[in-house]
Amino acid sequence: MLRQACHELVVRTRGRGLHEITEFVSDWLRQQRAQEGLLTLHLRHTSASLLIQENADPDVRRDLDAFFGRLVPDGDSIYVHTMEGEDDMPAHVRTALTTVNLSLPVNSGRPVLGTWQGIYVWEHRHRAHSRRVALHFIGE
Amino acid sequence: MLRQACHELVVRTRGRGLHEITEFVSDWLRQQRAQEGLLTLHLRHTSASLLIQENADPDVRRDLDAFFGRLVPDGDSIYVHTMEGEDDMPAHVRTALTTVNLSLPVNSGRPVLGTWQGIYVWEHRHRAHSRRVALHFIGE
Amino acid sequence: MLRQACHELVVRTRGRGLHEITEFVSDWLRQQRAQEGLLTLHLRHTSASLLIQENADPDVRRDLDAFFGRLVPDGDSIYVHTMEGEDDMPAHVRTALTTVNLSLPVNSGRPVLGTWQGIYVWEHRHRAHSRRVALHFIGE
Repeated sequence: MLRQACHELVVRTRGRGLHEITEFVSDWLRQQRAQEGLLTLHLRHTSASLLIQENADPDVRRDLDAFFGRLVPDGDSIYVHTMEGEDDMPAHVRTALTTVNLSLPVNSGRPVLGTWQGIYVWEHRHRAHSRRVALHFIGE
Repeated sequence: MLRQACHELVVRTRGRGLHEITEFVSDWLRQQRAQEGLLTLHLRHTSASLLIQENADPDVRRDLDAFFGRLVPDGDSIYVHTMEGEDDMPAHVRTALTTVNLSLPVNSGRPVLGTWQGIYVWEHRHRAHSRRVALHFIGE
Repeated sequence: MLRQACHELVVRTRGRGLHEITEFVSDWLRQQRAQEGLLTLHLRHTSASLLIQENADPDVRRDLDAFFGRLVPDGDSIYVHTMEGEDDMPAHVRTALTTVNLSLPVNSGRPVLGTWQGIYVWEHRHRAHSRRVALHFIGE
């Protein structure tokens, strides 16, 4: 019998960088007794992203952030929108270069992530923020 | 009782830049009497994108487009595929760097966008185009 | 009557570049007798992407790969995580700049792709790999 469930997860980031949420998401699926279906995540902000990336070596997350920091430098003189700080417009660009939506099939109660995949909120601002992630499940 | 609905939205762009479609999408959900569920948008083109971004200060959209214009310059000599104009291959690259699919949970009849989020078609060609967006809703 | 189906597709890549999977995906939908609904694809890896791009001129795919090769150079000295080879961290960055999830409405048994759109696995490593793509369908 198909059914759906939804939830909002609040993630407290500690400033720029990747914050893993895989366990929170898996726990919520377990509480819903989700077996087979489709899980959707949507981050309700424009200066942070959702990302699926390697969960093994933390250097990978450090290097990702270093690359994006060089590609989209803070305080770039190309921007007109500068009132909210030197990292605000770069945060919008980093969000546009990545994504705020994820869609994951669920199999035997778990999202079908690969062995090395984790789900992350990528904070693009230097300051800590509370980030809201809408979760939706449809299935059995 | 779960059900689904689909539609095609035609968006007339006025050349390179972001064109908001949030109201069209919300209106369609209202017409479907959608309450709780999942909304999917798919743009059927390879030289424009779908983007969720800030809907407040228009300078943010201007700056996004300025950054992408510098990152992916028109007329770049790296390209072989140049017959369709100096902005054609850059449009494909900008599309690859962003996305053509969005998935949004729907709650109380509305997509769960954040306060500052709007849904945009990002036209990457300089000329105006008609862009087709497939909409799909599943839920109650 | 709404129902769902899932599958895992294994794609053998031949090294860096785009590998089309549109036919495999369409065939699977046909086998499921899918008519109207939602198709989700998830690539279970962190050094390859899923991409919807032009299926006409092969130069477009060559140019996309050339642009990304210059934007995210192999052997970049910015990286700390280098043990798995000069193309490993660039593969993670290229994955972050693109996506590993796609969501496509299905209409009359086919994904609602535009005329020039194909579905690709984008291998970012130089060596050939087996890449697993989870497929999920919900609908009628």
